[in-house]
Amino acid sequence: MTTGKINVSVENIFPLIKKFLYSDHEIFLRELVSNATDATLKLKHLTSIGEAKVEYGNPKIEVKIDKDNKKLHIIDQGLGMSADEVEKYINQVAFSGAEEFLEKYKDSAKDSGIIGHFGLGFYSAFMVASKVEIITKSYKDEPAAHWTCDGSPEFTLVPHDKTERGTEIILHIADDSTEFLEEFKIRELLKKYNKFMPVPIKFGTKKESLPKPEDAPEDFKAEEVEVDNIINNPTPAWTKAPTELKDEDYKEFYRELYPMQFEDPLFSIHLNVDYPFNLTGILYFPKMSADLQIQKDKIQLYQNQVFVTDNVEGIVPEFLVMLRGVIDSPDIPLNVSRSYLQSDGNVKKISNYITRKVADKLKSLFNENREDFQQKWNDIKIVLEYGMLSEPKFYEKAGEFVLYPTVDEKYFTLAELKEKIAANQTDKNGKVVVLYASNKEAQHGYIDIAKEKGYEVLLLDSPIVSHLIQKLEADNENLTFVRVDSDHIDKLIQKEDTQISKLSEEESTKLKTVLEELVPKATYTVQLEAMDSNAAPFMITQPEFMRRMKEMSQTGGGGMFGMGNFPEMYNLVVNTNSNLASTILSTEDKSAQEHLVKQAMDLAKISQGLLKGEELTAFVKRSFEMIK
Amino acid sequence: MTTGKINVSVENIFPLIKKFLYSDHEIFLRELVSNATDATLKLKHLTSIGEAKVEYGNPKIEVKIDKDNKKLHIIDQGLGMSADEVEKYINQVAFSGAEEFLEKYKDSAKDSGIIGHFGLGFYSAFMVASKVEIITKSYKDEPAAHWTCDGSPEFTLVPHDKTERGTEIILHIADDSTEFLEEFKIRELLKKYNKFMPVPIKFGTKKESLPKPEDAPEDFKAEEVEVDNIINNPTPAWTKAPTELKDEDYKEFYRELYPMQFEDPLFSIHLNVDYPFNLTGILYFPKMSADLQIQKDKIQLYQNQVFVTDNVEGIVPEFLVMLRGVIDSPDIPLNVSRSYLQSDGNVKKISNYITRKVADKLKSLFNENREDFQQKWNDIKIVLEYGMLSEPKFYEKAGEFVLYPTVDEKYFTLAELKEKIAANQTDKNGKVVVLYASNKEAQHGYIDIAKEKGYEVLLLDSPIVSHLIQKLEADNENLTFVRVDSDHIDKLIQKEDTQISKLSEEESTKLKTVLEELVPKATYTVQLEAMDSNAAPFMITQPEFMRRMKEMSQTGGGGMFGMGNFPEMYNLVVNTNSNLASTILSTEDKSAQEHLVKQAMDLAKISQGLLKGEELTAFVKRSFEMIK
Repeated sequence: MTTGKINVSVENIFPLIKKFLYSDHEIFLRELVSNATDATLKLKHLTSIGEAKVEYGNPKIEVKIDKDNKKLHIIDQGLGMSADEVEKYINQVAFSGAEEFLEKYKDSAKDSGIIGHFGLGFYSAFMVASKVEIITKSYKDEPAAHWTCDGSPEFTLVPHDKTERGTEIILHIADDSTEFLEEFKIRELLKKYNKFMPVPIKFGTKKESLPKPEDAPEDFKAEEVEVDNIINNPTPAWTKAPTELKDEDYKEFYRELYPMQFEDPLFSIHLNVDYPFNLTGILYFPKMSADLQIQKDKIQLYQNQVFVTDNVEGIVPEFLVMLRGVIDSPDIPLNVSRSYLQSDGNVKKISNYITRKVADKLKSLFNENREDFQQKWNDIKIVLEYGMLSEPKFYEKAGEFVLYPTVDEKYFTLAELKEKIAANQTDKNGKVVVLYASNKEAQHGYIDIAKEKGYEVLLLDSPIVSHLIQKLEADNENLTFVRVDSDHIDKLIQKEDTQISKLSEEESTKLKTVLEELVPKATYTVQLEAMDSNAAPFMITQPEFMRRMKEMSQTGGGGMFGMGNFPEMYNLVVNTNSNLASTILSTEDKSAQEHLVKQAMDLAKISQGLLKGEELTAFVKRSFEMIK
Repeated sequence: MTTGKINVSVENIFPLIKKFLYSDHEIFLRELVSNATDATLKLKHLTSIGEAKVEYGNPKIEVKIDKDNKKLHIIDQGLGMSADEVEKYINQVAFSGAEEFLEKYKDSAKDSGIIGHFGLGFYSAFMVASKVEIITKSYKDEPAAHWTCDGSPEFTLVPHDKTERGTEIILHIADDSTEFLEEFKIRELLKKYNKFMPVPIKFGTKKESLPKPEDAPEDFKAEEVEVDNIINNPTPAWTKAPTELKDEDYKEFYRELYPMQFEDPLFSIHLNVDYPFNLTGILYFPKMSADLQIQKDKIQLYQNQVFVTDNVEGIVPEFLVMLRGVIDSPDIPLNVSRSYLQSDGNVKKISNYITRKVADKLKSLFNENREDFQQKWNDIKIVLEYGMLSEPKFYEKAGEFVLYPTVDEKYFTLAELKEKIAANQTDKNGKVVVLYASNKEAQHGYIDIAKEKGYEVLLLDSPIVSHLIQKLEADNENLTFVRVDSDHIDKLIQKEDTQISKLSEEESTKLKTVLEELVPKATYTVQLEAMDSNAAPFMITQPEFMRRMKEMSQTGGGGMFGMGNFPEMYNLVVNTNSNLASTILSTEDKSAQEHLVKQAMDLAKISQGLLKGEELTAFVKRSFEMIK
């Protein structure tokens, strides 16, 4: 029997690390700046616990392009390395110095923000460099070291005369990566990945005016001086305590995150939790439109202030991915599949925490300033309605703040609405009937009729509203929703008293026969109703159930299979008490009768937006004839 | 000076390989079956060149679940390994056996389909297994070997009594991966990744009836036998020569690729090229709807019959990502960023080749059976129109087959259209004017008027059509497109002869003054025209240029910045020769005059779909009064 140790062959794995460790080559800069930050924060920690007897000072990280010599420098003032440490940390790939450090100082280092996740990070430099140098001087009293490697596994290590503490990495940029010698490119990358890292990052210099003395004359010209251009904000808003921040601070941070966004957010939610996982962040509700798709991927995910990704699918509950803002958590596993993320217990807890915080915030906004909350309703409703459908935990809390607006811009919670309409809108079977419209313009005529009866009409115009109504009905006994144009108003809310028809039974039968001959049967069912004599003589309605099932099937995830392709079916409601009904009955001339029905039918169709094409052209022509 | 070799630390890199090599753990099965295929094809090659003196036979790969013992077996009958080879290929991670093999036999092995890309593949087994065994017997006369490793870098290697040639991999599935002991899961993975691999893969058995003897009696019951259940098709259509395949074969392969798809594809394109890159495949045009988004990600990408991904962005030209089918090419670099892919020369060539093949196919379909091509037009136009806008090479060729249908379902190429309308639709400035509608129903009245003049009206109803006609106008001198409702017909195609107005100049001025008082100025500009006395008295038009710019700005990538939010502006065209115009002029009673104008204006609005809400309700009520 042989036993042994699996041997990872350097010649073969090194190119793999170099080329395939990250699919995006630009990541190298994030990794190197992270290492520099790491080295700086480690020193800070060691000085704070008295382990390092040096002055910490105000260290920064400098990134410098030397275009002529095709070099990129990353320089820090952190703890540096001795030659021995270079041997240990650099020459042993995948030996993560940060992990060892954390192990050694685990109690005291816990909250010092040391990154330590990027063991292989340094080698990503070879994705863009043909040769890499490290010049480094430890904070301990040891000579500086100079390490050089051309991307083969061979390296050289010699002493160096560097005297200042810290590490300088020099990348000799490869010919296929010269874009990383362009100032705009490096600036873009620093802005993308390092915008909020905790140590100041210098990239070039800029001119700044000295302050104006108090007694300066009007034409005083302030002296300009060259100062370091610091590219990052080391203490972004989410790292501060909510008590330190005012409304304006949140708005300002929003503008910092989205400089191209001119509109202020509606409100923000500060996330801050230590246990059972560590998470900070700020989420913003922007104004939302109905097209959810294009608004995704705006939340940025950080780990200890290092930008990781703007794809937070699986971490943030699905209905909140169209929010904006920042989440920072060292506890989210990366480099794993999305399906794994979704099943991970910790990640699930993060997602639940975010849902809860959002619900709490909405509730307090509602309670503190209802007027303001109502004004924002249209801009946030789509998110909330989607949340009610997709997150049971959110649905549970939603009753406390979700609003149902009427066409007259009154806003009710569901409980308030039920109370308000109970007296007037309870039908003879004891069901409370909620009337709604999906479009104020298109259903104007029907809304008018309902309002004449003193009924409230909701305006529910989100694309997923049919799903929501279906759910509300299932969860609220004796509550039913009907759209205003789904039947004659006295049928929508049936009361005991019935109108008496002017027509005898015989006349009714005759009228029905006449109409059924003239109206296409496949699409319209004739329905005679004894209504007020001033009500519309002809009206087209579309039964609630069929229409809702069709809508649900079209917007996905509900309704009945295949219903989306069913033909549209309508009722033609004819008012037997109208003058027109009598006139049609009494007209002997067949062609005149047909003309009457046709014109009335066309007018009813126009009310429902159903008169189109050739029929519409003919109607307009006929109607011009009538007025000329 | 020290020099040395960078040392990759096994303890640290091994967990990385195990956990993070692939973000999807399920990939392990693809890797192991690929290795088994590899070993089988290598043996085939060695026997074919006389290097291996054994019978190749009809080897297959077997995948077997042993649920009771929590084991998964992958067994091949390929070339196997001796103990020395296990040492060499397995114990040295990242030493890719396939690459060495290809190097040694590079001339003869070139086309034998050996995979050889997955040097690290075997170790992906540790993503799901707590322990892995290899039992292997070489085709050479050497004793079998038994290798075991529990996921630490320690392994054991002992002799084994296996006598049949080939390799068996036994995975002891870890507790967090028991899903991989479920039959449905393994079947799903084999179907996803290995459906078209070149060696038969057995997964369980199935019952099959023996053939019925010719002289069998009516009630003969065929005997059932247990046979191997082969899960893959080792010779999928794209690996065959186009000359071997009939139309029905392509359709059948489509059903094999998309079993849930009930509709046949419209047509297929067989891709087959050796130089300067290797690529085979079959693309299908399915019926397309206007919503392009949901139809993406249907093309499957293979490398030597191993499924890789269904995201072909960057490889297939953007306008073709909604096609379906298969592309197989060993030359597409994976594990690189999409932006790198798009800039890679080889990949760009592949994309150009696909564009060219698609254009050629469309041209030949058009030439061979124009009738049939026209019938398919509505289902493919969105892709072709998008292609014309996004791929200059496709645009160049598109003139030969892209069609412009009329509202009467005649189809013209651009050249044919120009010839057809040159005589009747050239205006007094020598411009050929193409009339079009975007909606037959909504613009019915306007289309009618154009057709009365003998003009052709195109039906251009794709969402991106405003961009397309903008481009066509830029590239075709003296050609201009106007929508039928963008002006009075005699203004759309201006000829020399002008109608004489019944009204004196004084009367015209008076009429205009009356109308401008009654019609909202901000939205409607009054335009008096001397038209045929039977033409509509009032008509609303929307100038072409503004509308087109707005549309382009709304669908993105063109038009004028911010135009999408401009208010809608219309012209009210009044026919001075109509009886209504005279009646309005001669009506002294202000309120009667206003009533006339209001009714006429409402009718004109109805024709343009502009009468809505309260105005519509009032119109319908008024009109019911008029007929009762």
